[in-house]
Amino acid sequence: MPAGSPLDAYHKDLPATPFLAVDVDVMDRNLLRMATSATQRGLALRPHAKTHKILKIAQRQLDYGAVGLTVATIGEAEVFVAGGIEDLFIAYPLWVTGEKANRLQALAERVRLRVGVDSAEGATMIGRHLAGSALEVMVEVDSGHHRSGTQPDDAGKVARTAARAGLAVGGVFTFPGHGYGPGRAGAAAADEAQALSAAAAAMTGAGHPPAVVSGGSTPTAALTDRTAVNEVRPGVYVFNDAQQAELGSCSWQDVALTAVATVVSRSGRNVILDAGSKVLGADQAAWATGGGRLPEYQDARVVALSEHHATVAFPEGHPLPDLGEMLRIAPNHVCAAVNLADEVVVLKGGAVVDTWPVDARGRNS
Amino acid sequence: MPAGSPLDAYHKDLPATPFLAVDVDVMDRNLLRMATSATQRGLALRPHAKTHKILKIAQRQLDYGAVGLTVATIGEAEVFVAGGIEDLFIAYPLWVTGEKANRLQALAERVRLRVGVDSAEGATMIGRHLAGSALEVMVEVDSGHHRSGTQPDDAGKVARTAARAGLAVGGVFTFPGHGYGPGRAGAAAADEAQALSAAAAAMTGAGHPPAVVSGGSTPTAALTDRTAVNEVRPGVYVFNDAQQAELGSCSWQDVALTAVATVVSRSGRNVILDAGSKVLGADQAAWATGGGRLPEYQDARVVALSEHHATVAFPEGHPLPDLGEMLRIAPNHVCAAVNLADEVVVLKGGAVVDTWPVDARGRNS
Repeated sequence: MPAGSPLDAYHKDLPATPFLAVDVDVMDRNLLRMATSATQRGLALRPHAKTHKILKIAQRQLDYGAVGLTVATIGEAEVFVAGGIEDLFIAYPLWVTGEKANRLQALAERVRLRVGVDSAEGATMIGRHLAGSALEVMVEVDSGHHRSGTQPDDAGKVARTAARAGLAVGGVFTFPGHGYGPGRAGAAAADEAQALSAAAAAMTGAGHPPAVVSGGSTPTAALTDRTAVNEVRPGVYVFNDAQQAELGSCSWQDVALTAVATVVSRSGRNVILDAGSKVLGADQAAWATGGGRLPEYQDARVVALSEHHATVAFPEGHPLPDLGEMLRIAPNHVCAAVNLADEVVVLKGGAVVDTWPVDARGRNS
Repeated sequence: MPAGSPLDAYHKDLPATPFLAVDVDVMDRNLLRMATSATQRGLALRPHAKTHKILKIAQRQLDYGAVGLTVATIGEAEVFVAGGIEDLFIAYPLWVTGEKANRLQALAERVRLRVGVDSAEGATMIGRHLAGSALEVMVEVDSGHHRSGTQPDDAGKVARTAARAGLAVGGVFTFPGHGYGPGRAGAAAADEAQALSAAAAAMTGAGHPPAVVSGGSTPTAALTDRTAVNEVRPGVYVFNDAQQAELGSCSWQDVALTAVATVVSRSGRNVILDAGSKVLGADQAAWATGGGRLPEYQDARVVALSEHHATVAFPEGHPLPDLGEMLRIAPNHVCAAVNLADEVVVLKGGAVVDTWPVDARGRNS
């Protein structure tokens, strides 16, 4: 390893490669920075826990001032409620049939629970099962990512349908996912503000002014328009990843989670690491430089990933790492990498200090 | 669902979406077809179990005549040995240090075990720990995929180094992964035959004629040159996937594993399904039509995948599925999808007949 690498002096402590390692000091710095930024802007912070799926990190986010957590699925909510979290938002337009309704009912009796809805039909389905319960709905609007979400002008209609179906309407939310691209975060944050403002006006006009107006993502959180938004839901910031570093929304020193891998083969200017897509995930945006990045070798490129191999090309003249050497590789999209692992190894000053189970791994339904 | 869909009449039995479903009759047909093809060509069949990671399927492959299993990691080997499999090949150029050596030693004392090696340094490392053990090594050569593997002409040198280090040399292998592309399988199979022949000659010249000459992959298996090769290691064929169907190496009726998902949102010509990259995996070759395929809706395209959303575009004039409807979606790369799931639901004639744990899920080291 290059001098100063987080793995420098502690090889003997490390488990067999490949494994995911979290530098807890870097992670805590990331948590503090986002919490401070949200506080200074007067925004409630509700981190998206789908990134880490780890109870110990969820508790740490609350300790740093988060108002509650965001999750993507009922299964994730169940894990975090069992672990003691008392305020959860399932930021997803659930289609609620009987089995899912029973699970939501059980959760809503224990904690504050909100779920997304993006159509009158979806609101009607939730109301059929959960009218009069403590569950609240949040109307999802599309702010330009063009995934789920109703049009902002229709948010009032969805809210009214939900209320008539016997549901409490908690507010409105969007995910400005089109901010995940070079130079796109500013425009996406502006789109978010415009869409949420229009939706809030429509809901107010329909008699359901939104108490919570929720947006945000890791690349756009610092650009959030606080005149239009009062809550942000970034997820990736806890660890960051190669995507965020390549987008410029963090530095390489802010990447808290990496896969630790061994050089198992060499050929020409390439080395093969034993961490592939089953460790890193296969996410690769069109603008990414490769299948991940090596923070200690900024000029190297991950030119191919297969399930158990990362092919890393080093530039001419750069000394190649030796066979058997351990290297750190940052996944492109850390949410995908964590969801592949049963546990993460926790490092402090390069030494192993703990192992955390990925409590909600694979809880997709 | 369209008439004749495998989910047609049994919605009430199905678990909450998203989940992975295996049509066991289609799977058995796939197992039989590959076993018959290998037998007719006089090739030993050693299926790659990284695709399914399921003990019940491993046993079925042996029942259909497989000579043993291929795996990618020591952890996978440990799971299959614990489940009663007695002949395993770890087709990977392991870099063997103390902890891994101890695990290999324990396995080699119980079952027939072979591991890959692709460098003299790697052979020396294995020999340092495991000289004189029952472990055998297989020399990996590059046949054009340009991942791991030594050059064929160097196979004799690697074999000689391994033998001098006290290791038994079992043979030679390659992975013709460059056959994963439209129209490329034939050339890759020819490359495989040429590389393995050259390597076998080099090893024979070095005094280590290979007993096992192993190649094959799902797209190239039927094209294997039996004058050069005596064992094939296809993996994906057990389930097949959108990639294999788009490559033409199987039909859509041969796709045995799909994710079952619910339509949760609609917008314009798009529907959103609740199975995203955390269920399907994010693998997408440059030539793929999208992030997966819907066998029942051949004209639909998966135009975007995020963690919990598949955005599926339907052509003009095609009736859109309803909100709440359940659809089947074939992952691009089934090995990635299975490795995300803790279990698969087994269907026969559309009805749930069993649930199989993914025993070796996440065993990457």
